Amino acid sequence: MTHAIVADLAGRRIRVGLDVGGTKIDAVAITPGGDLLARLRRPTGWGEAAVVEGVVAAVTELVAEAGADVTAIESVGIGIPGLVDAVSGRVLHAVNLGVESLDLADLVARRLGAPVRVENDVKAAALGAAALRGIRGSMAYLNLGTGVAAGIVVDGEIWRGARGTAGEVGHLSVDPAGRLCGCGQRGCIETFCGGGALARAWDRPGSLPVRDILDAADAGDERALALRADLFHGAAAAVRALVLSADVERVIVGGGLTALGDRLESGIRAALRSGAETSAFMRSLHLDERIELLPAGSPAAAFGAALVGAATPLKETVTHG
Amino acid sequence: MTHAIVADLAGRRIRVGLDVGGTKIDAVAITPGGDLLARLRRPTGWGEAAVVEGVVAAVTELVAEAGADVTAIESVGIGIPGLVDAVSGRVLHAVNLGVESLDLADLVARRLGAPVRVENDVKAAALGAAALRGIRGSMAYLNLGTGVAAGIVVDGEIWRGARGTAGEVGHLSVDPAGRLCGCGQRGCIETFCGGGALARAWDRPGSLPVRDILDAADAGDERALALRADLFHGAAAAVRALVLSADVERVIVGGGLTALGDRLESGIRAALRSGAETSAFMRSLHLDERIELLPAGSPAAAFGAALVGAATPLKETVTHG
Repeated sequence: MTHAIVADLAGRRIRVGLDVGGTKIDAVAITPGGDLLARLRRPTGWGEAAVVEGVVAAVTELVAEAGADVTAIESVGIGIPGLVDAVSGRVLHAVNLGVESLDLADLVARRLGAPVRVENDVKAAALGAAALRGIRGSMAYLNLGTGVAAGIVVDGEIWRGARGTAGEVGHLSVDPAGRLCGCGQRGCIETFCGGGALARAWDRPGSLPVRDILDAADAGDERALALRADLFHGAAAAVRALVLSADVERVIVGGGLTALGDRLESGIRAALRSGAETSAFMRSLHLDERIELLPAGSPAAAFGAALVGAATPLKETVTHG
Repeated sequence: MTHAIVADLAGRRIRVGLDVGGTKIDAVAITPGGDLLARLRRPTGWGEAAVVEGVVAAVTELVAEAGADVTAIESVGIGIPGLVDAVSGRVLHAVNLGVESLDLADLVARRLGAPVRVENDVKAAALGAAALRGIRGSMAYLNLGTGVAAGIVVDGEIWRGARGTAGEVGHLSVDPAGRLCGCGQRGCIETFCGGGALARAWDRPGSLPVRDILDAADAGDERALALRADLFHGAAAAVRALVLSADVERVIVGGGLTALGDRLESGIRAALRSGAETSAFMRSLHLDERIELLPAGSPAAAFGAALVGAATPLKETVTHG
């Protein structure tokens, strides 16, 4: 490994990827071949300046951990929530980060002297999940975290759609009598299986509300049983929406709720099977066999961001270097 | 026009497209440049042999109407309901036509001595609608007929998805307490805005039940008012599903219900606006401005089928000719 890093150093061959989340930055350094050199996590700052500082500090620490310095960086990719203009590298309305408008790619590129690309975090994670799972053809990455959104990857490329709402299945309403969503609609998929919506509906003390819901459901609590059913039903509805519209071959589930592990995966599978019980058409789709869960703490999002950065043409490396 | 046809004749330059529906075949002959030479409609037969005979008869009459004969045909494209293998040209389970399994492309090609391609009718119509409306980028064609399904076209190509369910938004459930769908699920979009489901729910005599529903709603009938709201609500839900998953730029509404004209279009627009009233996110999508209705009797489906046929490589023309 040391030998490989020295070789990389000589040729500026470290690719960095960062997943900038509401609480932490997850950063990875990979070789051009996709091998992991180093990984670290550090807290995310609040506000535009703090986000830039946090990213620069994470990258600096990361390359030091990989036994190199910033001159060895070939490219940086950043996945971040909010409205991202992948061409300009500008981020808008990343409300969980206190960011209203930020020229993230430009500011970080100037500090690091390396080309920087920015992508919506869920889209970057989708790219990473497809690569880590070796999926060709079409797939969706369904992120079950505080909110719910999906990214679609086709033949190794992010499916952008016309206006950036591809995969926004979290805000499809599947129950006109359902809970009010933060988006203003009622019965959105996110109100069923978003961690934030479930925590609000549960409304009891505890730092891991969705885990508490599952534990209480196991113990027979009626409210918890209903919310657990909502969780699995909502995730199943998201899978159905992705397959019956974009017709992806596989759906990879990621995000914070994957900390629930097999309890989540088997619950979604069971909901997909139960939803197909009365329908030969739905059974013919075998949706329960087409989902899989990322392991908790998967580096898919940061890894995908590194791939986004790696898409930078080489001439840009020269310009910025 | 006569001069053009003679020129076409010499070079086998007539492209034929057929939309084979449950009651009628709609057939068009176009030039390679996409100009309409002739169009005719004739009843569809029942069963496999009758479908082949009907197609051959329609093509023969059509080219005669265009002042030519079958030797002038460069390609034939057929849009047909059911499971279609676009590569082999085989059709399965076209239940409304009495077809269980049919090698449609091969059988018609032998009879006409021209290369034949077969495509799912909604996908072919999507291609035709995109071409007739001059849409680049991404669009969905939402077919509101007896059933409800959509086809997606991106940059002039049919979006196939992984297993042929792209655009099958008719069977997304949007209400767990909704009507039972023919597919076995409850509250599918098709139970709200499919002509068949609306006719069953209306259950009063009359040959044009959806028109009757709108007329009775105008006259204040309560049941009709509820079903009319369902129609617009369901179509709006389909538009939302297509934009929030595949993120198409435009949704073109076609199918038998377009006979309702502006009453349908303005109703769907109003439902999209009303659904966005409480949601800044949904308002930001401007869905009401992104839909349009095909005129009743539009040749989009047959025209799209002709484009499907025209995708035949020229060497195949030689082989079959």
